Amino acid sequence: MRNYILIVYDVKEKRVNKILKICRQFLDWVQNSVHVGELTKAVFEKLKVKLTKVTNKEEDSIRISKIRTGKMLRLEILGIHKKQVLDNGII
Amino acid sequence: MRNYILIVYDVKEKRVNKILKICRQFLDWVQNSVHVGELTKAVFEKLKVKLTKVTNKEEDSIRISKIRTGKMLRLEILGIHKKQVLDNGII
Repeated sequence: MRNYILIVYDVKEKRVNKILKICRQFLDWVQNSVHVGELTKAVFEKLKVKLTKVTNKEEDSIRISKIRTGKMLRLEILGIHKKQVLDNGII
Repeated sequence: MRNYILIVYDVKEKRVNKILKICRQFLDWVQNSVHVGELTKAVFEKLKVKLTKVTNKEEDSIRISKIRTGKMLRLEILGIHKKQVLDNGII
């Protein structure tokens, strides 16, 4: 069974790329510092272990919201849909 | 009935303060560009009208995730809990 995961991070500049790369291995980039996706428990734990290794506990903040399924969530976007813009190669 | 709202915005610098102020009227600031809270449908619509007025559709992106209740969501934070840090006046 997969859960819907939404990660938002607020980290020191020097660690942004590392955290971006890890999140991209598991989730979709949808907006600066925001990644979403559906992960099994085992894969989710792997992601957390990788993130925990590179996170500075005193300086960084990674906020992980988990819900049982993406079907429980209604998404509305005001303005541009950054992921589509990225997919169409405009960014 | 209230829904749980999570807003993440990625907007041009010149509009950040305006959008921050509007979000703070309705929701809790929990991390840079991230606000959460439980709103009735009517209040949520008011928030959206205000945000739509100040958003530049071609440059800004405001991502609104809505779920029926916060009880459906599990929150995990790696590193510092920015809202607590703010509440304790450290930021």
